[in-house]
Amino acid sequence: MKPSALPEFLAQAARLLGDGAVKTAPSDLEPYCVDWRRRFFGKAAAILFPGSAELLAQTVQLANHYQIALVPQGGNTGLSGGATPDASGEQVIVSLLRLNRVREQDAVNKTLTVEAGITLLKAQELADTMGLLFPLSLGAEGSATIGGNLATNAGGTAVLRYGNARDLCLGLEVVTPAGDIWNGLRRLRKDNTGYDLRDLFIGSEGTLGFITAAVLKLFPKPAGRLTALVRVASAADALALLQIAQARCDAALTGFEYMSAQSVQVVVDHFPDVAKHGAQIIGGSADAGLSDSVLIEISHPFSEDAAKDLLESVIAEAIERATASDAIIAQSIAQTKALWHLRETITLAAAEDGVQVKLDIAVPVSRLAEFIDQMDQEMLAEFPSIRLHNFGHFGDGNLHYNIGAPQSLAAGLSAEQRRAAYRAFIEQNEGTIRRKVHDRVVAFNGSISAEHGLGQLRKAEAWRIKSPVERRLMKTIKQALDPNGILNPGKVL
Amino acid sequence: MKPSALPEFLAQAARLLGDGAVKTAPSDLEPYCVDWRRRFFGKAAAILFPGSAELLAQTVQLANHYQIALVPQGGNTGLSGGATPDASGEQVIVSLLRLNRVREQDAVNKTLTVEAGITLLKAQELADTMGLLFPLSLGAEGSATIGGNLATNAGGTAVLRYGNARDLCLGLEVVTPAGDIWNGLRRLRKDNTGYDLRDLFIGSEGTLGFITAAVLKLFPKPAGRLTALVRVASAADALALLQIAQARCDAALTGFEYMSAQSVQVVVDHFPDVAKHGAQIIGGSADAGLSDSVLIEISHPFSEDAAKDLLESVIAEAIERATASDAIIAQSIAQTKALWHLRETITLAAAEDGVQVKLDIAVPVSRLAEFIDQMDQEMLAEFPSIRLHNFGHFGDGNLHYNIGAPQSLAAGLSAEQRRAAYRAFIEQNEGTIRRKVHDRVVAFNGSISAEHGLGQLRKAEAWRIKSPVERRLMKTIKQALDPNGILNPGKVL
Repeated sequence: MKPSALPEFLAQAARLLGDGAVKTAPSDLEPYCVDWRRRFFGKAAAILFPGSAELLAQTVQLANHYQIALVPQGGNTGLSGGATPDASGEQVIVSLLRLNRVREQDAVNKTLTVEAGITLLKAQELADTMGLLFPLSLGAEGSATIGGNLATNAGGTAVLRYGNARDLCLGLEVVTPAGDIWNGLRRLRKDNTGYDLRDLFIGSEGTLGFITAAVLKLFPKPAGRLTALVRVASAADALALLQIAQARCDAALTGFEYMSAQSVQVVVDHFPDVAKHGAQIIGGSADAGLSDSVLIEISHPFSEDAAKDLLESVIAEAIERATASDAIIAQSIAQTKALWHLRETITLAAAEDGVQVKLDIAVPVSRLAEFIDQMDQEMLAEFPSIRLHNFGHFGDGNLHYNIGAPQSLAAGLSAEQRRAAYRAFIEQNEGTIRRKVHDRVVAFNGSISAEHGLGQLRKAEAWRIKSPVERRLMKTIKQALDPNGILNPGKVL
Repeated sequence: MKPSALPEFLAQAARLLGDGAVKTAPSDLEPYCVDWRRRFFGKAAAILFPGSAELLAQTVQLANHYQIALVPQGGNTGLSGGATPDASGEQVIVSLLRLNRVREQDAVNKTLTVEAGITLLKAQELADTMGLLFPLSLGAEGSATIGGNLATNAGGTAVLRYGNARDLCLGLEVVTPAGDIWNGLRRLRKDNTGYDLRDLFIGSEGTLGFITAAVLKLFPKPAGRLTALVRVASAADALALLQIAQARCDAALTGFEYMSAQSVQVVVDHFPDVAKHGAQIIGGSADAGLSDSVLIEISHPFSEDAAKDLLESVIAEAIERATASDAIIAQSIAQTKALWHLRETITLAAAEDGVQVKLDIAVPVSRLAEFIDQMDQEMLAEFPSIRLHNFGHFGDGNLHYNIGAPQSLAAGLSAEQRRAAYRAFIEQNEGTIRRKVHDRVVAFNGSISAEHGLGQLRKAEAWRIKSPVERRLMKTIKQALDPNGILNPGKVL
């Protein structure tokens, strides 16, 4: 890049987009240069806010001309640093937040066409006003954008029934690295007229194109939805419970979340009120300690009674077979919220506790219990008394296999000192822990990033693990579509 | 290509694969050089039968060296000529039929890993022995192979609930155009570790790689499955019925097939016995004539009674709202088979009747009735008294919009003379009809190949319709992955 390239590009971008759409002051840039978990701190030359796909396409043409690296960004809620610029000060963030129009709502076709900058929450609300359901659901949905959800193929708690973000999208509009607009906004369930470009862009984390709009797939809204918290003795019993629930419910099983005893313990430690509602099930008496547990959600399109019959039949069979030892079905919306709140508070409680090694792995569902057993043993052998805060989307084979420092390190310390001690332990051991877990994941034919993507955080590990053939295929595609390498360099590959 | 290249390649292939795996005699080649519908007649230099992915990979390396064009072929049941060689006599067919091993069965993970040459029927049977369901289902399933189903992203009657072939595959093994083996045989529901190579190969009709093995997704087997034949006055009423059924059943609605009055008439004309069972519903008296109708299938994972309750509630609401005027629920397996046999006989009856223009289109579900109305009017204005044998996967927006010659052309002719007269009419008008239908499909943002692929049959039309950006993206990917253009040249692009 010539020294004059960046200022010339920014001057031309300002002419094209308007001065207000190009920001370069450090104070303006700061919030966009740090990722959500505050693990990656970048330095950008500027942030651009194009107001339409056409303006974005022209911006990309300019970037190609001047060889400027562009970093696509939506709600900046990614968990792998995929939307954070590097530290060079030469990359330019392109925010999609001003692309926030609703293009089309079609209740009969059950589709919603929106631009990339719409938040996930807004998309859910739009579907709701159409009498339908957009099932993608995750913690950051108030700020995460549809564009970001698709660029990272987001997961969440409804994947078991409805699939990943990829499965919830029928069509895309994309600005390519060449600065063309590809109109693939098809509202079709079936289309076999050539290569599946849509799925190539989905999950490519902004390295192959800018997703500017998408056709989202909507579903009938369930009339009845019931949640139960079920006490199980082990991950193996959780797996047996899953088999019972799937055989009885098939698609009516819309949630199956596992919480290890230690993952609930961290909630008890830091947010005891939150854990209260489930206490009778998961225990916690001084004698027995906490147990592992499963949140089951059953939905029925037409009747709450039918959902209740199904859920009760699952629990009855599980207790009869001694797969589960106790269960409560939430009897009100408030109780349902309380149970899900417990599950969702694990992440917050862990953050309150101190830094952890956070892993986002998947293995075949059939091997999940075996994986947890072997992995826990290996970890405890190497690091006695570390805490294994595992929980996650058990029905998808996806576990947030998270590891906290030994509590013994915190004896007699203040909260602040405790967090410093935990941080020191994790910083010292994170590399070893990550590699050990990933190696076992590979031995189980699993994935080291089930739903969070590679970004910067998992890139090196993924590259270490991938076969040469797969690396070559990915590089070939990147090189073919983005020969100047201007789209999100340093991410994914 | 040097004149000596082909004989040298074949000699080396014979050394590699063994003499029995390389056939060049015209009589041996003939059945593999004609497509299933006998519309494309090719001439190949040879057909190869590699017995493993490793041998296939080495064969592809040889083909690259000698610049030999390879045509992948499975069960040779494709409907668009995608597996038929050209007429040059220089292309070499590569049959996947000897890759027919079962690699892995995992009932708990609900996956089945098989090689490409396994038939669809065999895959269904394997799933059944595991107590599970592999839902892909189509007419040619006794000979169609899993490799071919995935290469063409096959559809069928269960897409409404379970998706296309693409949605039923978790992982692939592929021999790339460079002769590498990509092992992407992941048995995972979630994996966000890079580009979605799997979906790029699926549906690429053998132009980007040879699919050699696949991980198939299985489902709980429904305990109750019930079918009803419902009389509706029009496509608009069929659409209203679909809305009622989806709202009440969601995923329990596993089939929704529309049959226009004229599509059933052709069955009545040629196979009157087959049409008998549905006669009380679809009519056919001299006064009233036949009506449009819909086959609805409801499945329930756990109970036949629950399926029956749902189906009855759909029919009751439809009749109350005057969306439907009559219905029968099949009361036995024999009756169920009879109703589906009526639907499946449409294609056979049409073939008996004489040649037709066969189209495989999709539009947004919400616009399907409007499309049929406008299209029928346009067709009848141009060609009075032609027959509109429309039927298809209404719930997916996918219609086999087929057109038969006017019956008046056959007055006083023998069956053979009739077919000749129909053929003459269709041959004269096919181009015009295809273009008119496709142009309206494009105006409705639809697809001109919903499930059959492009192959040779629809390539030119697809290319006429596609945007320059999309054509460029497809060509870029093809060029990057197969720079020598040895994989299935002349197909798709």
